[in-house]
Amino acid sequence: MSRPSKHRAAIIAAASRLFRRQGYAATGVNDIVAVSGAPKGSLYHYFPEGKEQIAEEAVLYAGRLVAETLRTLASQHNTAGGMICAYAGLLAGWMEASGFRDGCPITTVLLEVGAESERIAAAGRLAFGAYREVYQMALEGDGLPPERAACLAGVAVAVMQGALVQARVARSGTPILEAAREAGRLFAPPAGQDKEAFI
Amino acid sequence: MSRPSKHRAAIIAAASRLFRRQGYAATGVNDIVAVSGAPKGSLYHYFPEGKEQIAEEAVLYAGRLVAETLRTLASQHNTAGGMICAYAGLLAGWMEASGFRDGCPITTVLLEVGAESERIAAAGRLAFGAYREVYQMALEGDGLPPERAACLAGVAVAVMQGALVQARVARSGTPILEAAREAGRLFAPPAGQDKEAFI
Repeated sequence: MSRPSKHRAAIIAAASRLFRRQGYAATGVNDIVAVSGAPKGSLYHYFPEGKEQIAEEAVLYAGRLVAETLRTLASQHNTAGGMICAYAGLLAGWMEASGFRDGCPITTVLLEVGAESERIAAAGRLAFGAYREVYQMALEGDGLPPERAACLAGVAVAVMQGALVQARVARSGTPILEAAREAGRLFAPPAGQDKEAFI
Repeated sequence: MSRPSKHRAAIIAAASRLFRRQGYAATGVNDIVAVSGAPKGSLYHYFPEGKEQIAEEAVLYAGRLVAETLRTLASQHNTAGGMICAYAGLLAGWMEASGFRDGCPITTVLLEVGAESERIAAAGRLAFGAYREVYQMALEGDGLPPERAACLAGVAVAVMQGALVQARVARSGTPILEAAREAGRLFAPPAGQDKEAFI
């Protein structure tokens, strides 16, 4: 792989923004170049395999940003429930600020081409896996057994994804905040109940 | 509105299938006509406003099918938890049978164009609202207070949506089954806890 350059990074960031707002099929490589500000030649230089390769890198890039946000929140909050509620607050604010145009940076691409493109699906699995890992570590930190923490981490990723879709359609951040609050209820074993019963 | 005809219905059903598999932007009206088997003239006759109008109708159509499935399951199961787990079993089976190509019939379109097209977003709100209503009635039937039932119904829709995305990327039905099981835990107030505490 080429050494990362500012043009390469600009192309990936531009593609990520466009895919998030309008999807994969509606975004042409010319749009990506125009938004990135990079010379067109750099697109062919860094991405000889074309749009599919750019999308793979864009999914990995956006996935790393989301995972990094989650890790930062995990370090700032004592419990997984606190972390997911803080994340929901951020997401709802970002969605509102974008007029509910932005959403999950990778879902649209994955739904459009994840079934056809194994390399894009694999990038999605890596990204979602990284999110799950942050939730799982936070949940284990709360004292949940690993198997239960792994299951809940997957459900946390799913509910936040789905809530972003709901928020976009409803033009409201409420579905995100409610999803996080309910996930937080699942995270906390009911008082007095043996944690082992949750495995 | 024109009286429904078999060509109109065939075009909507074909559009719904294609949008689910490959999204809105990648699906041309010629593809829709070809899959529908309807004469091309009928597309212009019934959908003079073009692809956006077809997509609006396709979202409403697919939404009605999903809501009908949910209502059938609600009538067959005594609890909301039983209903959502049965629904998850159906979805996981359908996803597997399609090689994880099918998924939610409306999410991809809504993510691609729901921000730009108010009529498509409105169709999505109607569809999701119909799903929520079925969950809410089932939850109220379980004895949950209306406000709590409404909140959980929204979260149920979100988590199943998100789980379908996870399942498509993971090429596995497990995320759907786990999401339903966890939603079922939320649906059932912990034994001995006053339901009012959940409002």
